[in-house]
Parts: sequence; structure tokens; C-alpha cells
Amino acid sequence: MKQICIASTSTLHGSGYLDYILDELKLLFKTAETILFVPYARPGGITHELYTKNAKAAFASIGKTVVGIHEFDNPIEAVKQAKGIFIGGGNTFVLVNQLYKNQLVEPIKEAVLNGTPYLGTSAGSNICGLTIGTTNDMPIVYPPSFKTLGLVPFNINPHYLDPDASSKHMGETRETRIKEFHKFNTQPVVGLREGSWLEVKGDSIVLKGGLKARIFEYDKDAFEIESGTELNQLK
Amino acid sequence: MKQICIASTSTLHGSGYLDYILDELKLLFKTAETILFVPYARPGGITHELYTKNAKAAFASIGKTVVGIHEFDNPIEAVKQAKGIFIGGGNTFVLVNQLYKNQLVEPIKEAVLNGTPYLGTSAGSNICGLTIGTTNDMPIVYPPSFKTLGLVPFNINPHYLDPDASSKHMGETRETRIKEFHKFNTQPVVGLREGSWLEVKGDSIVLKGGLKARIFEYDKDAFEIESGTELNQLK
Repeated sequence: MKQICIASTSTLHGSGYLDYILDELKLLFKTAETILFVPYARPGGITHELYTKNAKAAFASIGKTVVGIHEFDNPIEAVKQAKGIFIGGGNTFVLVNQLYKNQLVEPIKEAVLNGTPYLGTSAGSNICGLTIGTTNDMPIVYPPSFKTLGLVPFNINPHYLDPDASSKHMGETRETRIKEFHKFNTQPVVGLREGSWLEVKGDSIVLKGGLKARIFEYDKDAFEIESGTELNQLK
Repeated sequence: MKQICIASTSTLHGSGYLDYILDELKLLFKTAETILFVPYARPGGITHELYTKNAKAAFASIGKTVVGIHEFDNPIEAVKQAKGIFIGGGNTFVLVNQLYKNQLVEPIKEAVLNGTPYLGTSAGSNICGLTIGTTNDMPIVYPPSFKTLGLVPFNINPHYLDPDASSKHMGETRETRIKEFHKFNTQPVVGLREGSWLEVKGDSIVLKGGLKARIFEYDKDAFEIESGTELNQLK
């Protein structure tokens, strides 16, 4: 049975790395003593080693061991053997590029569909959707494809941000960007505000956390859903 | 001789389309009665026809005729025959995808290097750089390449935005994103604030408009330059 946590962000303003979601992670990873961490998104360009160190520290506080996928000679085998997988945030293009380079897209998808618990934050959540076409990140490298894991039948927009009515900046709002996406694509997009996550258990997909999420469907008006809403009909 | 205007934005908050830069455009296009408009970036997904109508209205006020490239059976020939070219803003990925689809990257580059006056705004400015690796846009389509016109030997970040110290949002600031870019790329990046433009005349590249610009070079601290600064040494 699929067991996935798709989190908008790893960190809430003013609190520590993964702090707000640790109780949830205890449950998600209850059968995993050791979690395989994929540090490929390299936030701020930090090394795989340093990024993994941060993940180790956060999971140590709930008694879990973390190993970085870069520590294995065979990353595909590491995915196959993993008892739990965590893909952290950073740059989505850098992440996807490295996943394709190491031929990991299919193995990760297969492992998660077969029940390996998965946590994604930010870029690691983006790739749970059908494509990275709704990432907020700068395209600093050119990946071989925008197609991703498709663990849910829609796209994710993490760090979803409401329009700032007082802004004089002429750049597009997030809502405008997602509407533009729907001029060229038809899959729904879930705008996940910071502090929200989707809990996937088998066929169930439920919005969790204290906030509403914003749903964008092709050729329809966007709408808000409450925490606790079941999204298994969204496709 | 190259004659290029690389503008951060088409529109300043509270004023009309291209208003702030019309005097400049009279000079840039002084030998062009008719300007070829490339509406491929489709802001908000609007049609080529509607977007071209907006450009026609703005240029009519300085006595210029605008024709949309989509009105020609042979867009490559339209570029070759053009007396002036304007590529407007919208979505950079959509723009680049369509330029490649119609095999226009090389013809436009050649025309501009041979002296056809060129105006770019936003996405149309982004493509004047080496790649679209520093666009702010959402990657709503997958183009065959991120490489662009290379009319200047660096990358452009249009709509450059200073960090908001009061923000509690955990998404990256523009400066953080460009620094990340430099973990994977070495070309300089010019952060052009709204209301600024680069005036390229032959080998000269000068910052124009009332604001400073922010320059990011590989492995160096970012710095500000005043309007009027010559950038022909930046590469």
C-alpha cells in the first residue's frame, strides 16, 4: 500500500528543520529504522554530504538513522533495499536532472508503489506529481525531461503563495502562473501552502495541516479545500 | 551594428504598455516604419492575435506599424525581411519552445547581429542572454533547449526583485536563486529591476533607466551598478 507524505516545505518560519511534521514522520516511518535520503536537490548548492548531515540531525530526534544515497556504489540497489525514502527540497531541476542521470525515476516510483514509505518536501514533493511544470524554482540546469514520479494523478505547487494585493511588482502572481499552465496542460494542480501536506495511503489522498489548499482544475475556477478533505477523485 | 534594447518589463505599475520607454523606442526604431512582433510568449496564455493587437496600439502612438509574425506563411522569411523586431514578455518557456519549433533562433540572432533593431521585454529580454537558466517563469512547457540568442555574453534576470526582509515565506529570494545558478553555471547574470534596460549599440552595453542593476558573477560577491554604467567588459 502506498504511504506517502507530500509536504509543501521542510521548515516553517521560526522553527527547525522538519520540526512541525515530526509526529507525522514517526508514524510514516514506524517500520523503518533507517531512511534513505536523496540530497540531489542541493538547496543553495550545498553538497550531498552537508545536506545529508542536516537530515540525519532532524531524524535522530525521533530515533531514526539516515543514510545518503550518494554513500552507495549502486543507488538503484539502495532504493530497492530502502525501508523508507526521503527526498528533500532545493532546486527541482537539479533534483530531476540527477534522478534521470542515475536512472532512479522508475526504481523510486516502483518502490513507493510497492509500499516503501516516502517523504517529500518542496522539490521532493513536486516530483510526486505528473511533471515539474508547476515548480517555482529557477531552471538552473536542463533536465532530460519534466516528467516525474506520478505518484498522484495531478501536479503539485509547493510553497503556494496568495497574491499580494499591495505589490507594485509586475511579475505574475502564483495563481496567474498556474492559470497559464492550464493554457498548455490539463492535469489539476494542488497549491500547497507552507505547513500543509498531502497524506497518501493506498488510494486515499487527504489534505493535512492547519491550512486550506487551493485547487486548480483545467477550465474551471480555482477553489479552496479544508484540511481533512479527501482528494482521491481529483485527476 | 547591433542595436538592442533589453528591457526588464514592458509595463511599469500604474502606467500603460511600453509607456515609460516610448521615447527610447522612437530612436531605436527610427529607420523602421514597420516592426515585426513576435507574440509567442503569450502572457496569461492570450492568443497571438490579441497580443499583437496590444503591441500595435502601443506603437501606433509613436507612428509605427506592427505586424505579428504569425500573420506570415514563412516566419523565417519574415525575420529576414524585418526592419525592426520586438519580442514581448509572457512565459519564457512557451516563447523558447515556439522559437525552436519554427526554427527561428538562428535567423533572429543573425538578423540582430546584422543590425536589425531589436526590442525585448521580460521573456523577450531573457532570450537575449546565453540561456533561460535565470528566468523567473514557471516551466509550463518543455522546450528542446534552454540555450537562447546570446546577443550579450551573460544571462538576464528580468523583473529583478530585492529580498523582502519582512517575509515569513520560506521560498528562496531572487538573490539566493541566482547564487544557486552559479553553483552549476559560470556566466554572469544581470539583475534588471523594473524600469531599467540595457542599451546595446555595437560593442557597447549600457545600463539605462533611473535605477541601479545588480550584477552576479561566478564566485564573487554580487554588486550594484549605477545607471549609465558600461558593461562591455562583463563576460
